[in-house]
Amino acid sequence: MALIVQKFGGSSVANAERVMNVANIVTDTYRAGNDVVVVVSAQGDTTDDLIEKANEINPRASRRERDMLLSAGEQMSIALLAMAIEKLGCPVISLLGWQAGFNTNSAYSAARIKSINTDRLNAELDKHRIVVVAGFQGKNKYDDITTLGRGGSDTSAVAIAAALHADRCQIFTDVEGVYTADPRKVENAKKLKEITYDEMLELATLGAQVLNNRSVEMAKKYNVEVEVLSSLKRVPGTIVKEVTTVEKMLVRGVTKDNDIARISIIGLPDTPGIAFKLFSVLAAKKFNVDIILQSVGRDGTKDITFTVAKDNAEETVATVLENFDIPKENIVCDTNVSKVSVVGAGMETHPGTASTMFEALYAAGINIQMIATSEIKISVLIDLDDADRAVAAVHKAFFPD
Amino acid sequence: MALIVQKFGGSSVANAERVMNVANIVTDTYRAGNDVVVVVSAQGDTTDDLIEKANEINPRASRRERDMLLSAGEQMSIALLAMAIEKLGCPVISLLGWQAGFNTNSAYSAARIKSINTDRLNAELDKHRIVVVAGFQGKNKYDDITTLGRGGSDTSAVAIAAALHADRCQIFTDVEGVYTADPRKVENAKKLKEITYDEMLELATLGAQVLNNRSVEMAKKYNVEVEVLSSLKRVPGTIVKEVTTVEKMLVRGVTKDNDIARISIIGLPDTPGIAFKLFSVLAAKKFNVDIILQSVGRDGTKDITFTVAKDNAEETVATVLENFDIPKENIVCDTNVSKVSVVGAGMETHPGTASTMFEALYAAGINIQMIATSEIKISVLIDLDDADRAVAAVHKAFFPD
Repeated sequence: MALIVQKFGGSSVANAERVMNVANIVTDTYRAGNDVVVVVSAQGDTTDDLIEKANEINPRASRRERDMLLSAGEQMSIALLAMAIEKLGCPVISLLGWQAGFNTNSAYSAARIKSINTDRLNAELDKHRIVVVAGFQGKNKYDDITTLGRGGSDTSAVAIAAALHADRCQIFTDVEGVYTADPRKVENAKKLKEITYDEMLELATLGAQVLNNRSVEMAKKYNVEVEVLSSLKRVPGTIVKEVTTVEKMLVRGVTKDNDIARISIIGLPDTPGIAFKLFSVLAAKKFNVDIILQSVGRDGTKDITFTVAKDNAEETVATVLENFDIPKENIVCDTNVSKVSVVGAGMETHPGTASTMFEALYAAGINIQMIATSEIKISVLIDLDDADRAVAAVHKAFFPD
Repeated sequence: MALIVQKFGGSSVANAERVMNVANIVTDTYRAGNDVVVVVSAQGDTTDDLIEKANEINPRASRRERDMLLSAGEQMSIALLAMAIEKLGCPVISLLGWQAGFNTNSAYSAARIKSINTDRLNAELDKHRIVVVAGFQGKNKYDDITTLGRGGSDTSAVAIAAALHADRCQIFTDVEGVYTADPRKVENAKKLKEITYDEMLELATLGAQVLNNRSVEMAKKYNVEVEVLSSLKRVPGTIVKEVTTVEKMLVRGVTKDNDIARISIIGLPDTPGIAFKLFSVLAAKKFNVDIILQSVGRDGTKDITFTVAKDNAEETVATVLENFDIPKENIVCDTNVSKVSVVGAGMETHPGTASTMFEALYAAGINIQMIATSEIKISVLIDLDDADRAVAAVHKAFFPD
């Protein structure tokens, strides 16, 4: 007998039929002798529909009231799932975020979980009930409803698994697991049996939309074994854990991120600390700066090029203009770029990885604009139009089958 | 400066435009220097839509999970109304039933309010905020969400007005107040300026769909002055209070109730206590028995005829058969009936009221099947097809203009 936390996203509970499908998975797990806590998101497009309703009335509504509105989404889905489980004859109870003990800070719409009071959860499990918990939500110290922001249900699930010392946290999605590349775009993309937290983090950051980043960080911190698997096909998924043993793969996956922009600043004064000042200013704005290239220019100036998220590009340009005395035309912002990366923990001990990647891109006639490497990944910046071809070519080089 | 509780039903907040209309009424009241607490129902058909969703998955779902589902309806409407009030520039906060301090018993779907902890409400009013409260809902001692049943938002509003000692509780509806008869059906129906709690109770019980009965009982118990008025036209409504002074009308209104059934039991043994036993059994089922007629039959038997709500008719017949040893064909259930009543506190001192009513019906050629009277009303049971004509004829006799 084990304690298993299962999380289902909005598409997994989008309609009555899907809700019954989830109820079947949950009750099968329960009837196999396990304690089960289920975390659910709002149904299908509910959250988007609610946001639209709010915008119709007041696009500048306070975040506090937006959280009040949006948290109704999971309230409906947990009740409906509990009803479906009742129909299948298993004891069940649904709990809202605050009822399940989720205490958060007061950063409405992007709240952080401060603690989980597990009294109620444990009391319900002691009664041998399946517990269905509303993901994405909690309450702050003022007894007001907060939400964790998009993808927050993954975090809710991992947090419950950590707090209850669950044996496993299963994240059900519409894919069968974590792949070496996007299986809809790359032939021969292979499903991984296992992957480390760090590798998963790099993949999540780099645009593989499988698991929310914060949830992986939390899983790593509390050593929660996570399984990513399909809610539609009953096959084993990918296990995310500290050390993987089964597959000794050099590279875990190839991924791309199209939501970035390249910013070039030309003719900065070549004085000590100028780069430090630049990136401090951007860090204060919480802008995530990646791939940095610095070159000495003519006449005691230097050029700095880096990437930021596309959403932050405009404000980055404005921030640079505010803080540095340079003409506007010396800043160039290019959103027609893509970052393609290979990720794998074995990489650092194998210097050949980079050259394999570069060779594959060269053979495909794709020009590399910038390069960045870390212990477990190599990223290149290329033209947006080449992105899909680049992923396919690099994937083929590492997974030739 | 006064403290005013305003309640808006589902149709008053059915869409963005209506929500903005309500926000205008509320902020006007606030800007006139009043403290304002607003109680809202779920938008338009939300509750019905949610019930349909639940039935699709499990028509026999537990009431606990149904309450969890349905209470999401008001959660959405309070957030949207708060956003609309924010847009109009007034300080506002929305509160769920449990946040507003509603403690109920555990009778899911028909919970009773046990107490209201007003700490949070008072704290928000002290901050000069408009407080928007979710009607229809509360929590029980297990921290689970409960609902008060249909029409519960009226009760929520009156309960808050009582707990906060509000100066007035305004119930906004789609009619302009309480009328001497249904204004959509009876020409010359007059809007009343004032009406007593008891008169309102009779009218509510008799089918005038203006105010929920429990809310009037509570208003009477705690002496809350209630005003029924329109959310669309800004004109004074009808005040419901203990003693009315302005209008010395004999009869307040004429009303009909088509949702009843006449049950006749023929050939019960004519032994002492048989009627008592019959009505005890039905009272234990919480069936509301009205207009009773008892007649001695032949051969030491008697016949009893009475009315119950149409919804309870079938179960009433079954209950009688279970408890009395009589053949099935001796029970006759007729749902093709209507109860037409005149209501007015002045009636008891004016014996002419009944004869005026009966004369009007006679002149219209309408047959009276049964009669019941109390201090403040006279009801007759007639054929369903005659109901509208009967109301018009009786109304004309009392309000000739």
